[in-house]
Amino acid sequence: MKSLGLVVEYNPFHNGHLFHLQQAKKTSNADVTVAVMSGNFLQRGEPALVSKWTRTRMALEAGVDLVVELPYAFATQRADRFAYGAITILNALKTDEVIFGSESGNIRPFNETVDFLNKNEEEYNLLIQEKVKSGVSYPSATSEAFKQLSNRPQETIDLSKPNNILGYHYVQSIRQIHSNMKANTIQRTGAGYHDEGVGVNNIASATGIRKMLFEHGSDLSAITSYVPKSTLNRLQDHFNSFGHFLNWDRFFLLLKHRLITSTPEELRDIYDCEEGLENRLKEYITQAEDFTSFMQSVKTKRYTWTRIQRLCTHILTNAKKNTMERALTEPPTYIRLLGMTETGQHYLSGIKKDLNLPLVSTLSKYKDPFFELDKQSTNTYILGFPYKAQKVLYKQEYSNTPIRLHQK
Amino acid sequence: MKSLGLVVEYNPFHNGHLFHLQQAKKTSNADVTVAVMSGNFLQRGEPALVSKWTRTRMALEAGVDLVVELPYAFATQRADRFAYGAITILNALKTDEVIFGSESGNIRPFNETVDFLNKNEEEYNLLIQEKVKSGVSYPSATSEAFKQLSNRPQETIDLSKPNNILGYHYVQSIRQIHSNMKANTIQRTGAGYHDEGVGVNNIASATGIRKMLFEHGSDLSAITSYVPKSTLNRLQDHFNSFGHFLNWDRFFLLLKHRLITSTPEELRDIYDCEEGLENRLKEYITQAEDFTSFMQSVKTKRYTWTRIQRLCTHILTNAKKNTMERALTEPPTYIRLLGMTETGQHYLSGIKKDLNLPLVSTLSKYKDPFFELDKQSTNTYILGFPYKAQKVLYKQEYSNTPIRLHQK
Repeated sequence: MKSLGLVVEYNPFHNGHLFHLQQAKKTSNADVTVAVMSGNFLQRGEPALVSKWTRTRMALEAGVDLVVELPYAFATQRADRFAYGAITILNALKTDEVIFGSESGNIRPFNETVDFLNKNEEEYNLLIQEKVKSGVSYPSATSEAFKQLSNRPQETIDLSKPNNILGYHYVQSIRQIHSNMKANTIQRTGAGYHDEGVGVNNIASATGIRKMLFEHGSDLSAITSYVPKSTLNRLQDHFNSFGHFLNWDRFFLLLKHRLITSTPEELRDIYDCEEGLENRLKEYITQAEDFTSFMQSVKTKRYTWTRIQRLCTHILTNAKKNTMERALTEPPTYIRLLGMTETGQHYLSGIKKDLNLPLVSTLSKYKDPFFELDKQSTNTYILGFPYKAQKVLYKQEYSNTPIRLHQK
Repeated sequence: MKSLGLVVEYNPFHNGHLFHLQQAKKTSNADVTVAVMSGNFLQRGEPALVSKWTRTRMALEAGVDLVVELPYAFATQRADRFAYGAITILNALKTDEVIFGSESGNIRPFNETVDFLNKNEEEYNLLIQEKVKSGVSYPSATSEAFKQLSNRPQETIDLSKPNNILGYHYVQSIRQIHSNMKANTIQRTGAGYHDEGVGVNNIASATGIRKMLFEHGSDLSAITSYVPKSTLNRLQDHFNSFGHFLNWDRFFLLLKHRLITSTPEELRDIYDCEEGLENRLKEYITQAEDFTSFMQSVKTKRYTWTRIQRLCTHILTNAKKNTMERALTEPPTYIRLLGMTETGQHYLSGIKKDLNLPLVSTLSKYKDPFFELDKQSTNTYILGFPYKAQKVLYKQEYSNTPIRLHQK
């Protein structure tokens, strides 16, 4: 069976994702689609709108065949390790081709950029270090360093665009692990990555859709045009059972409590807490009314919103340096299966005996530092809902088997 | 000026307290009354119904002249160190006589019990240790050991009664620090210590009054007969400004979050977390619906409700062994002034130059490990209220000077 791999967050699954999924299937001519998806916390340091289980259902109902989880230790990292973790898992699942979205839809400049930077790696890294030292944020430093080095703008990609950065790291990771996986890209359509506005042709960004959901409360009709029917149904089910969608506001008191009662020394044990950030956070937290105003008071040009938001996630989940830093040099250690269609199950049966990572489908007694962190972050995420919903999510996480979607 | 000392929690101040205060003033013939009062967390490991500031006002309006805070590191300890901390502070404030409530109202058996146990200290401690090892809780072990040793029941006190235990430790602490302070006792009237029922003659226990308050929501009329008018007014003011009274329910989510995300190693750093209790707490917390059901599932014959509840308080405030254990061997290191009448202020001016502990009235930059813990626990307590109330309490704690009551 020919297999297509996707790296996704689906927060929530929308028409832009559907377009990408369908185009990618057509382009690759694959028999099965495998998605590696972030769990309950996302790369920008946010809790997911709805649980990974609901997002898995959305994916399966829209045409993905197999959904596995990108462990927390990779899902909440900077682009390079996020991509590395995702590609390693897709590779372990014998994926033939990964297809990502990009501004241009042309894979050649990605390959050439990777070539170029691999050749000029030392100089590139030195430039980045210099810029970071002078107070520039890491993402800006990488794109500035790249611009400075590169004299061939027509053949390289713009590394200031988040999607291009991810694509670059997918291609780079494939080479790094010496995988035979092919990389390809499809032009993104509609709204920009973080654009809160509503796009043309029934496409809106996930950020825009989440904004509409929080603005309209229980009325989901505002997003009808921008998501497939399956997403709408799943969101409605979620809302009916759990009472609300999740964002940082639901965790602000917990974050505040943690920051107030932790000593600076304890905070310095948290991953991403560097250079006195613990004092900055403690200084602003007592007076902050809500998460947004807290973030606004803490962030600077150097410490971007995403950087601080990720740190807040790690403080919330108590993700320590000693575990998280392993994800900077080591690959994922297991594959957590979230859901599958019959096609996905069939595919999995075929490759099962050749898997070089343990496949975790029921939790039982599986022990692993990355996995402990997944549990810890899931247990934290669950606290964002009322007690009854907590019980459902707890059961789903620790007692149920992966979701199986029966195809019509 | 002749001074009377009281050790109080006033959670809230009620008619029983008023009776004791008036009788004690009459008995001692004192010119000034000094109360050392627990802060926002109480000896049984509970958050106070209303803040220490509101409770200070209640005390001053009822006739106390000077209110100082018993630091968290002593206020949330077992009876012996609670009493030691309180007596040390009253002694530092040059109190001539301390008067406590007891079942009998007779001071002689307290003195004789202290004599008796000091003479038989070694044997007594051995007996306690034996009993604790065999699985008996510490409080039961002390009273059983005492009964076993003592053959003079008519001249000793019943050490299974909480008030007698406290009284015993007040007398014992006075001797321990070689204070000239006199100890005396007045018979308690009305409801038993933890009796939830309503007593005769307009006396109900603080536990009973809190229960009525939580049952009746915004309607305070249920407690009118059991508290002075000043208490009723203060509780009404509190309710109007802050929206609700506090109990453990308001902190359950924070406790759950802390327990879920802390490793067993981290929990073992918390004071009072011994003998694998961290695993027991982690085992029961995920499924617990509320604080009461959690406590019921965790407590055993050996680990009493109070013992576990105190541990939960320390987990909530992140009170570590390294600071709390200092309170087992060291005395309080400062006197935090909460409020005073003109009489109290006059008394304070008279003794100020002879104080052997620093008097902290505005926070400024006072640094001390016990004091840091007071701030940490206050900051945690404040999180139990809505944001607007948090701001008020924060200002009261860190910017305002002590309360001054102008007498008519």
